[in-house]
Amino acid sequence: MHSISSLRTKLENSIGALDFQSKPSELYEPIIYTMNFGGKRIRPLLVLLGCDLFNGDVDTGLRPALAIELFHNFTLLHDDIMDNAPLRRGKETVYKKWNTNVAILSGDTMFAIAYDFLTEVDPLLLPGMLKLFTKTAREVCEGQQYDMNFEKQPDVTIAEYIEMIRLKTAVLFGCSLKLGAILGHASVTDANNIYSFGENIGLGFQLQDDLLDVFGNVEKFGKEIGGDIVSNKKTFLYLKAMELAESKDLKELQRCYTDEDIPSIQKIEKVKEIYSNLNIREKTREQIDIYYNNALECLQKINVEESRKEELKKLAKQLLGRDY
Amino acid sequence: MHSISSLRTKLENSIGALDFQSKPSELYEPIIYTMNFGGKRIRPLLVLLGCDLFNGDVDTGLRPALAIELFHNFTLLHDDIMDNAPLRRGKETVYKKWNTNVAILSGDTMFAIAYDFLTEVDPLLLPGMLKLFTKTAREVCEGQQYDMNFEKQPDVTIAEYIEMIRLKTAVLFGCSLKLGAILGHASVTDANNIYSFGENIGLGFQLQDDLLDVFGNVEKFGKEIGGDIVSNKKTFLYLKAMELAESKDLKELQRCYTDEDIPSIQKIEKVKEIYSNLNIREKTREQIDIYYNNALECLQKINVEESRKEELKKLAKQLLGRDY
Repeated sequence: MHSISSLRTKLENSIGALDFQSKPSELYEPIIYTMNFGGKRIRPLLVLLGCDLFNGDVDTGLRPALAIELFHNFTLLHDDIMDNAPLRRGKETVYKKWNTNVAILSGDTMFAIAYDFLTEVDPLLLPGMLKLFTKTAREVCEGQQYDMNFEKQPDVTIAEYIEMIRLKTAVLFGCSLKLGAILGHASVTDANNIYSFGENIGLGFQLQDDLLDVFGNVEKFGKEIGGDIVSNKKTFLYLKAMELAESKDLKELQRCYTDEDIPSIQKIEKVKEIYSNLNIREKTREQIDIYYNNALECLQKINVEESRKEELKKLAKQLLGRDY
Repeated sequence: MHSISSLRTKLENSIGALDFQSKPSELYEPIIYTMNFGGKRIRPLLVLLGCDLFNGDVDTGLRPALAIELFHNFTLLHDDIMDNAPLRRGKETVYKKWNTNVAILSGDTMFAIAYDFLTEVDPLLLPGMLKLFTKTAREVCEGQQYDMNFEKQPDVTIAEYIEMIRLKTAVLFGCSLKLGAILGHASVTDANNIYSFGENIGLGFQLQDDLLDVFGNVEKFGKEIGGDIVSNKKTFLYLKAMELAESKDLKELQRCYTDEDIPSIQKIEKVKEIYSNLNIREKTREQIDIYYNNALECLQKINVEESRKEELKKLAKQLLGRDY
């Protein structure tokens, strides 16, 4: 059994040692820059934890873990172009620091390198792992497309939103854990249960992120508070509020999300006030708790010693804001 | 043995039958649009020809062939953004018809689907085919980066240019043939020789393309003549001319490629005149012939009945403009 912190150290060492020694430097520098951006390394950590849960050799999980981190960062590179995002984790995004073409092409290259790393696994496990990874990659693209569609779609439902974040965020959590489980030679049932555990954690994680965007504190969150409100993002909080609001609040919320003349600070304040009136914070937490409990149920079913599940439970608590 | 035209029919049928039946349509429509763009389908054809050369079952080559065509079209989608190209094969490019975000994301999805298709091959052959495909994908990205670098680099050498087109164009020809050869259970030596054959054909093909851009006729070429000159592209022709030109011609050529006030028609005429003075057309053809002969030498070494090589020879002749 490995602790989260020891696995994180392993990961950081592997990422720090990445050296593509390839040319042209214009292509590979942004990749090194991105990979050293930091971040919580949740997804590659899930690969290792999934492997360790089934008593697999976590060192065999390092390359697939890096593949997942490369893939995740590739999607960020391209998403940042699409979202015109100048900053990520407090640093300039690649398309801003270099340019759009660099971000496109370095991103493409990262996607290819991810496959290179994945291809290094035991050939007997390769087809299954590849199929899962590629299916997930497609789903993440589909999720991003829905996310962009929703910007223009006036009547997004909560169910549609959940499906979008499932594709854009949650499936990669599930995939990461399941790749690890396959490496640990888990049974098909166990591998599917750990996937569902990850999917539920991923859903809860995204709602927690939506919540922190409005009610978090800047230092802990690392981003400006209220960004989603300023950019009229139809998050779970907003959609829930639209569902529950009546007359005055409903009108006011609609006005906030359409009237471009309201100054940001006022807009954030107003929307937060409506959220408070409607107990949106509590309702979002309730939904997160549903995913948390679903996840624990999936974990429960997995046929390994209970003590081996401790690190995953700990991580789930942290990610879903239940560690206080 | 299959003829080129029968293999092309097989391919067109497979491409025509592509139906991802996936949502969201905003993501998949541009993929179908792109795949039905037409084009010569050279690369997927090379997969089938490589397989057939070694008496492999060409039907097992169809999915890898589609993978190659998907990959190639994905690179075109992203290249067209980077090059601001509004038209391809006379039709609007994806980023122009939809927008940049669509072209980025649909492109990414095509890359993933390419892997999906490739993963369907015999698991015993999968690791080798994957490694080759991913290595090639990275090289194509590297080639595109060099191509962009050269726009700003004042002193590109012919050797650097050849290495750039080797990466951007030729390796995919080699890869396509070698994937087919692996499917046909070719020996390592034969597989490497067919790769080199493809690489040489790819190099010659690009020089032929450079040549047609200046001296071709519009109907046959399908693009405006002189596009490379108008956009100051440092092609083989230009670099050869810069190497050979003296005093007046040299100055004039440099002026044409730097003075933005020269009208396009005049610029094309002037550069063509200098090319004629320096016999650039003939010198380019000589270089193409070198690649053609190199390719034939590689084919010669391959340990299969000579009659099986006929279709590849025919295609090589066509692609390198020697079919008249």
